[in-house]
Amino acid sequence: MLAVSPTRGAAGTSAVVGVVGAGQLARMMQQAAVDLGIELVVLAAHDREPAVLAGARAVIGRPGDRDAMKRLAEMADVLTLDHELVPVEILDELAAAGHIVRPTGRSLVYAQDKWAAHRLFCDAGVPVPESRLVRNPAEVEAPVVLKLRSGGYDGRGVEVARTAEQVHRILAEWTGRDVIAQQLIEIEAEVAVVGARRPGGERVSYPLVLTNQVDGMCRELAMPAPVDAGIAERAVATAGAVVEAVGAVGAVTVELFVDRAGAVIVNEIALRPHNSGHATIEGAVTSQFHNHLRAVLDWPLGSTELIAPAAAMVNVVGADRGGDPNSRLPQALAVAGAAVHMYGKEARPGRKLGHVTATGSDAEQALNIARQAAGILNGD
Amino acid sequence: MLAVSPTRGAAGTSAVVGVVGAGQLARMMQQAAVDLGIELVVLAAHDREPAVLAGARAVIGRPGDRDAMKRLAEMADVLTLDHELVPVEILDELAAAGHIVRPTGRSLVYAQDKWAAHRLFCDAGVPVPESRLVRNPAEVEAPVVLKLRSGGYDGRGVEVARTAEQVHRILAEWTGRDVIAQQLIEIEAEVAVVGARRPGGERVSYPLVLTNQVDGMCRELAMPAPVDAGIAERAVATAGAVVEAVGAVGAVTVELFVDRAGAVIVNEIALRPHNSGHATIEGAVTSQFHNHLRAVLDWPLGSTELIAPAAAMVNVVGADRGGDPNSRLPQALAVAGAAVHMYGKEARPGRKLGHVTATGSDAEQALNIARQAAGILNGD
Repeated sequence: MLAVSPTRGAAGTSAVVGVVGAGQLARMMQQAAVDLGIELVVLAAHDREPAVLAGARAVIGRPGDRDAMKRLAEMADVLTLDHELVPVEILDELAAAGHIVRPTGRSLVYAQDKWAAHRLFCDAGVPVPESRLVRNPAEVEAPVVLKLRSGGYDGRGVEVARTAEQVHRILAEWTGRDVIAQQLIEIEAEVAVVGARRPGGERVSYPLVLTNQVDGMCRELAMPAPVDAGIAERAVATAGAVVEAVGAVGAVTVELFVDRAGAVIVNEIALRPHNSGHATIEGAVTSQFHNHLRAVLDWPLGSTELIAPAAAMVNVVGADRGGDPNSRLPQALAVAGAAVHMYGKEARPGRKLGHVTATGSDAEQALNIARQAAGILNGD
Repeated sequence: MLAVSPTRGAAGTSAVVGVVGAGQLARMMQQAAVDLGIELVVLAAHDREPAVLAGARAVIGRPGDRDAMKRLAEMADVLTLDHELVPVEILDELAAAGHIVRPTGRSLVYAQDKWAAHRLFCDAGVPVPESRLVRNPAEVEAPVVLKLRSGGYDGRGVEVARTAEQVHRILAEWTGRDVIAQQLIEIEAEVAVVGARRPGGERVSYPLVLTNQVDGMCRELAMPAPVDAGIAERAVATAGAVVEAVGAVGAVTVELFVDRAGAVIVNEIALRPHNSGHATIEGAVTSQFHNHLRAVLDWPLGSTELIAPAAAMVNVVGADRGGDPNSRLPQALAVAGAAVHMYGKEARPGRKLGHVTATGSDAEQALNIARQAAGILNGD
């Protein structure tokens, strides 16, 4: 358990957490940090990033910049992440120099490298889609899912190829990069298990989340997922096995598919707070952001119980035309029960700009409230 | 309704709110502001004040400093307060110069000047303790409550004199200041109505709060107050009449006594978020801090419904001996269901350093959780 570090934080500060990244996840960590008297220092590309606007102290720099990373680590009791595009070797160097890095570089590999994750998951005995590394179109039979082995996010780097011609086009586009060909699963539902794990192994999970993806980007979610209890149990157990195999520390989300036969299949893992867990802020006793900070500081984790029968979230995403959602904020706040979170970002098409959460007596009721407010913000 | 002001806030900012004061109330406003993409600028005595540590931008200065106040007003779409020790004439000057000031200087008088408030409440026909301005001990018969007309807070400036000798001592101590002698009410319970009001009159109230005061300082509260429904109704109606008479805008709290006969008597009004409303953060759909920002921006107010049958709060107060509560934070977090808020303040005896909220199936259950965690933090 990390004790107070009077040499770093001033009087009244309980700990200093360094975060590589300063996006909306770090912004919501900052809000949680304030509750706990934690000082957050973020590595930011510039001083208008969401977490910096929310008041986190900033070291300006990039994750690949050794000096900036070292400065960040030296200011903090523990170093953590708001995204996974961080060089593992730098994290390992900082750990070797005595800094506490959570998650570890070793575990982060499984969020960065989908092939390494696939092999680990196979070894752990959890169900995964049949997958192999491919180099040229002749090795691949459509229909198939093609994925970049690393570097993809929010739907970028994942394509469904339904014809041989599409396989050719996609592989040509990705020439020179490692590509995974993955069995196309007939998906009945996409679900996620959001949780947190301490270094010693104490682990908590929130109720299963149903996610609705559009173009590979999470658009809306409902918690608990309105699925068969047996499926939910298998998903939570499978995710637990994945989290243990990876040795995650901090907030962690395992994304899974449910196929038409009701089988649960692991898709991927994120070693940080995740869009799938945003409804925990209003919907659960303890948010994923609080539990992330508590986990990386090796402090006791908080209850993951829901505070209502159901919670839902809808993302606010920049429209192709449509101006700034902030200008429609007062109208959205008129929707009773809608909890709006704006990220302080400039509006651009396809960019996550905020989200709306609601709770209710069932998923549909909560979703309807969140959709109504998010629809106003999105300018629908 | 205040529209987005692109000249002040950068892209991604929905509004800029200026706050006179930078204590824990402004700190919790800052957390709410982040949700709404609002930029908060606070007038702070120094850069280690709670709201500045939480990331609010700061103008360093005192409320009596015209230049600092003017600078703050010029940075903001609307000016508001986190405490009431602000010169009304400066607020009036800023309003006359075209700045939007909420609450107005005129309404703030009723939070600063207990005699002006007493007369207004009498005119409004709400029940108040019998009171009069007194100059010398001969005018006063013990037992009696003696109060400074202005300048008191958190129990300072309010004394119960049970003997003529105590009357002499207190009035001697307060020589040269206006003193109110107030009928000593046999108090069955102290309650508070927390709410918010928009400039046009739209108004919301949270369920009645039962407060437990120690030495005049709020120590713990339960919401809804476990009192007779008729008493609760009268309290909420009486508070509503007070808020309208004062013309409050923003978060507002009316503190009331319930006497042994079940009569509801108005004590005083606070024109800002109030300690009595802290349990609204976890306990209600919309917190008093969100509703304060929404009210002063003239945006639609949020639901004041509770998210559980009961919510409770216990303050963390610096002990006479006992070190820094932050050092006991991990132990307090082990109490299931306790939501801890630390204010980033250096520990000093009698100082409010944080609070703990819990929700539950009844007030007692919620209070027990909050007391347990706060007890650990307090070093009991």
